[in-house]
Amino acid sequence: MRISTLSIGDELICGQITDTNAGSIAAQLLNEGLRVHRHLTVGDNEPDIMDALNELGRNSDMLIVTGGLGPTLDDLTSRAAARATGRRLVINEDARTHVRLMSGKLDSLLFCPLSDKQAMVPSKSTLIPNPNGTACGFQLIHNGCFMFFMPGVPSEMNVMLRESVLPFMLERVTHKRVIRSVTLNVFGPCEAEVDELLTGVARPDQGLAMGICVTFPWMSVTLRAEADNADTVAALLDSAAATVSERLKDYVFSAGGAGMDDTVAELFRTSGLTVALAESCSGGMIAKRITDIPGSSSYFLEGVVTYGNAAKMRLLGVSSELLDAKGAVSSECASAMAKGVRSAAGSDLGLAVTGIAGPDGGTEGKPVGTVFISLAAPDGCWTKRFQFQGSRDEIRTLTAWTAMDWLRRYLLQRAGS
Amino acid sequence: MRISTLSIGDELICGQITDTNAGSIAAQLLNEGLRVHRHLTVGDNEPDIMDALNELGRNSDMLIVTGGLGPTLDDLTSRAAARATGRRLVINEDARTHVRLMSGKLDSLLFCPLSDKQAMVPSKSTLIPNPNGTACGFQLIHNGCFMFFMPGVPSEMNVMLRESVLPFMLERVTHKRVIRSVTLNVFGPCEAEVDELLTGVARPDQGLAMGICVTFPWMSVTLRAEADNADTVAALLDSAAATVSERLKDYVFSAGGAGMDDTVAELFRTSGLTVALAESCSGGMIAKRITDIPGSSSYFLEGVVTYGNAAKMRLLGVSSELLDAKGAVSSECASAMAKGVRSAAGSDLGLAVTGIAGPDGGTEGKPVGTVFISLAAPDGCWTKRFQFQGSRDEIRTLTAWTAMDWLRRYLLQRAGS
Repeated sequence: MRISTLSIGDELICGQITDTNAGSIAAQLLNEGLRVHRHLTVGDNEPDIMDALNELGRNSDMLIVTGGLGPTLDDLTSRAAARATGRRLVINEDARTHVRLMSGKLDSLLFCPLSDKQAMVPSKSTLIPNPNGTACGFQLIHNGCFMFFMPGVPSEMNVMLRESVLPFMLERVTHKRVIRSVTLNVFGPCEAEVDELLTGVARPDQGLAMGICVTFPWMSVTLRAEADNADTVAALLDSAAATVSERLKDYVFSAGGAGMDDTVAELFRTSGLTVALAESCSGGMIAKRITDIPGSSSYFLEGVVTYGNAAKMRLLGVSSELLDAKGAVSSECASAMAKGVRSAAGSDLGLAVTGIAGPDGGTEGKPVGTVFISLAAPDGCWTKRFQFQGSRDEIRTLTAWTAMDWLRRYLLQRAGS
Repeated sequence: MRISTLSIGDELICGQITDTNAGSIAAQLLNEGLRVHRHLTVGDNEPDIMDALNELGRNSDMLIVTGGLGPTLDDLTSRAAARATGRRLVINEDARTHVRLMSGKLDSLLFCPLSDKQAMVPSKSTLIPNPNGTACGFQLIHNGCFMFFMPGVPSEMNVMLRESVLPFMLERVTHKRVIRSVTLNVFGPCEAEVDELLTGVARPDQGLAMGICVTFPWMSVTLRAEADNADTVAALLDSAAATVSERLKDYVFSAGGAGMDDTVAELFRTSGLTVALAESCSGGMIAKRITDIPGSSSYFLEGVVTYGNAAKMRLLGVSSELLDAKGAVSSECASAMAKGVRSAAGSDLGLAVTGIAGPDGGTEGKPVGTVFISLAAPDGCWTKRFQFQGSRDEIRTLTAWTAMDWLRRYLLQRAGS
């Protein structure tokens, strides 16, 4: 079965925003054993959209189209679809009802007078429900090709794909190969190091592929197995995943695709421990990441962002003598901050970071990128100096990632002991 | 002139990594007045690559191809290009010299056994130098279409585009149009409202296009003018930008493309005021955003993330009576937090948020999404209740955006008075 995708939007073809839908659709299809053959992007221009629909329609059994279904004038997909497939553009009453119902649910900040434009779809098409937005999608058959049209907003599109389009497609697949993948997330080593450690894991001759995808500052190792039956695929994946885990050891922070923050949250939940944070150069990034996770209030007691020395003294009890003698960016100050916030908040753990994120403020002995991380716990206090490289953003991101990884390693070790 | 781009790679078509080359090429071309008409992505598969080259070659005057020029077996672009254009694949001695020279320059971490494969290019093609990697690019003419082939590594591709491909293309543009764009960033209204307010701004007949790009929870309005000379373009853009600013008023937070955080930072710098934050449901997001900006230590004194009541009392001086009588999510508590952090930190402004980000914790009177934002300043204290809709992430994001927008509006008004 040949599957194509088409993204529509001036903002995409002009490079104003990066198209993430194409990749996200391809990845979700691949998880179900379906492979996208080609992807096309065109701008908000009716002739270009019509050409694309005609051309892809001729060469595909299924075509997934995203974008251009909004309420504004430059959203031309419905009309182009109607013209390309020789249909009229008609008001769909179900779509009209949906648009009106959804508009009632929307917050007043986001509320707007809605036109009926979003209820116009090509005749002889079937609506695709959009639980998260006003624009309905629609699907139709043209010259033997199933065409699915969805809005380009990722949060709307992904739900529609998962709940409607993908199940419909899977029902129509006759000879299905089994393709499954497993992703292990890794923090610490660089790509070349991981690549070398994993030499020989991929076995293309047996249907086992491996890919390393770097998303600064972490990376994922994806194993993908393809075979005629699920048992073979499972055996290939299990064995390869075990090899990867064994070779990368505790660099692997999750073997099921979970992110670092979810991993740390789960460890906190099972440990029953509480934590408080004192952040200087990371400026609230660690608190944000911990509180991103629902239910974090059960283990996160409080955080302070102490940029200045006055705040470090008043909120954390760091002494002015220490600040004078050692400076705010020092191992001693980091430990004092960690112990100070632990004691003030009455938490089990106190985590502190202090450093120089730049671009200014570096000295010869403490250049930009110098960061101290300290963890105060019931069984001790550990502090370490790091020298991170990169821009201010990169240094702050590395600081927050390393701090989260410290929490993960401490909680893991404690759970194991 | 019709320009197309083609990205080649299994990792792209499978959705394992997001294709950033297509957007980056389009944006760089647009800056020079050249517009990409369509973009295609295919996998590492010779027939698919050949089909794509044939099809895009027929419909384009220039075709920029990236990917598939590496040293490994799945890099098939050179061979497919030779076959699609009826050429032989030959060893290019200059390319061979380049591959060997570069391999000596490369870091040992990245070193790999090099074959002569990367020196194989279609006959009758011209090399495109690659100062940053081993794989040379090449260009050729087929049926009147200029085709440029470059490796997919962005750091290599971008230099080759800038130094070789783009200058070559510009030399061949006979009738060069001037294209320039201006972007205004907007927070507050929804897309349809903005669209309605901006009815008639776009004048396609005069070469002035307008696009609205929504990136939750804000959006950008991009005006793009195209004409024969720079003066006409400037006049079109100036007039349209003035109209947009006038109609959207203070919804526009930047007229030069700056983000909200940079805009607020600039206002703080010129105002000389300082700020301290007390965050509950936003959990450090506002502190993170303020400290994302270099130099924020000159106006950001401190932040506290007071998730629990104990922290609100101890760090902000909120009374237990108030918490008992009104609850932590209340107008009174928000004001007390804002005043409390302002007084404790000794800052000019105190900004506080308290609310229910969900998914749990909502009640009938205060459902999930209820958020109070309070700003304590020398000239008064303002508090407002918001009812945000969406997921936990969306509610937190809207909270942080609205809080930043409050700071912006206060600082603007003060600067104007």
